[in-house]
Amino acid sequence: MLLYDSPVSGNCYKVRQLFAHLGIEYERREVSVIDRSGRRELLGALNPALRVPTLVLGDGRSLGESDAIMFYFAEGSPYLPDDRFERAQVLQWLFFEQYSHEPYIAVARFWAIAGISPSDAEGEAKRRGGIAALRAMESHLAGHEFLVGERYTIADIALYAYTHVAPEGGFELEPYPAIRAWLHRVAAQPGHIAITD
Amino acid sequence: MLLYDSPVSGNCYKVRQLFAHLGIEYERREVSVIDRSGRRELLGALNPALRVPTLVLGDGRSLGESDAIMFYFAEGSPYLPDDRFERAQVLQWLFFEQYSHEPYIAVARFWAIAGISPSDAEGEAKRRGGIAALRAMESHLAGHEFLVGERYTIADIALYAYTHVAPEGGFELEPYPAIRAWLHRVAAQPGHIAITD
Repeated sequence: MLLYDSPVSGNCYKVRQLFAHLGIEYERREVSVIDRSGRRELLGALNPALRVPTLVLGDGRSLGESDAIMFYFAEGSPYLPDDRFERAQVLQWLFFEQYSHEPYIAVARFWAIAGISPSDAEGEAKRRGGIAALRAMESHLAGHEFLVGERYTIADIALYAYTHVAPEGGFELEPYPAIRAWLHRVAAQPGHIAITD
Repeated sequence: MLLYDSPVSGNCYKVRQLFAHLGIEYERREVSVIDRSGRRELLGALNPALRVPTLVLGDGRSLGESDAIMFYFAEGSPYLPDDRFERAQVLQWLFFEQYSHEPYIAVARFWAIAGISPSDAEGEAKRRGGIAALRAMESHLAGHEFLVGERYTIADIALYAYTHVAPEGGFELEPYPAIRAWLHRVAAQPGHIAITD
């Protein structure tokens, strides 16, 4: 299998982390997230969104979207519950991450990495959205060891990816003790890898 | 079951459409998408994202995120493939919709409905993102009857929701013949309902 990958992308990290847990071997091909020229030529036939991660299976079929890739490989493994309602709760957190968390916390980090200075209004909108996402996580994690079913699943892998590097985008985690404790629990899982691995 | 619902929300419409197909009965409680005061009191214990749709099951458990709700009810029905890879492709389109389509096309429509005037830069960013999403759909649908597996699934329900009202946000569909033909195929499905139903 071939993973179109970026070492700074938390979305790509999610897939690498799950593959590490599952002992899945694959090749990595780095795609720049700064210089996006040539994406249509590279990914156009594989993923209409032209984003990384994009995965090409051994038989040539391809999948895009980090969470769809994780769901595909996690089915039947300990990282996705068998219970239908818990699977839906996992999906709830995966969609929360992509809609209410990543567009604020990951984008603020990307701006910092890429040296992009947002306008005051843009920066403030990111700040407000990111804080709302962190508060939603904090209120849930104050009463739970993990996001779903009191055990580590792909929901935790997905939310960990950009939450643990949130300070790189200016979101300090000091006000969120339940998040910080959960980050430690996630990082203590057997087979945990770093985003830089 | 109780659906916290909004008649202008395409995300809520997705759930109502699937429930209509499946003959599922439920109550609707309207939540304003303009006046968001009181959301924490209303939805705080049900959905950390404080968004609609939020569904309360008969046993009191709750689910948020339109696509997680659809996936839960579509499992085992004709609206979600049994094949594991096709299920992942459905999820790929659901995540595409929430990350690359809804934030542009639905938000531009919401601004028009709510009478919000974006700055030129904001308007242009929405326009560019929306066109990229429509182009991705057009290129895929030029070779396919439906988004996944050549049959109507929750991926089509999800993408139809805001695509068919895209002109309300200023996105004309005239340049996208494959999308227009697909919209007609979706609307011709037995049990199809309107967003206003």
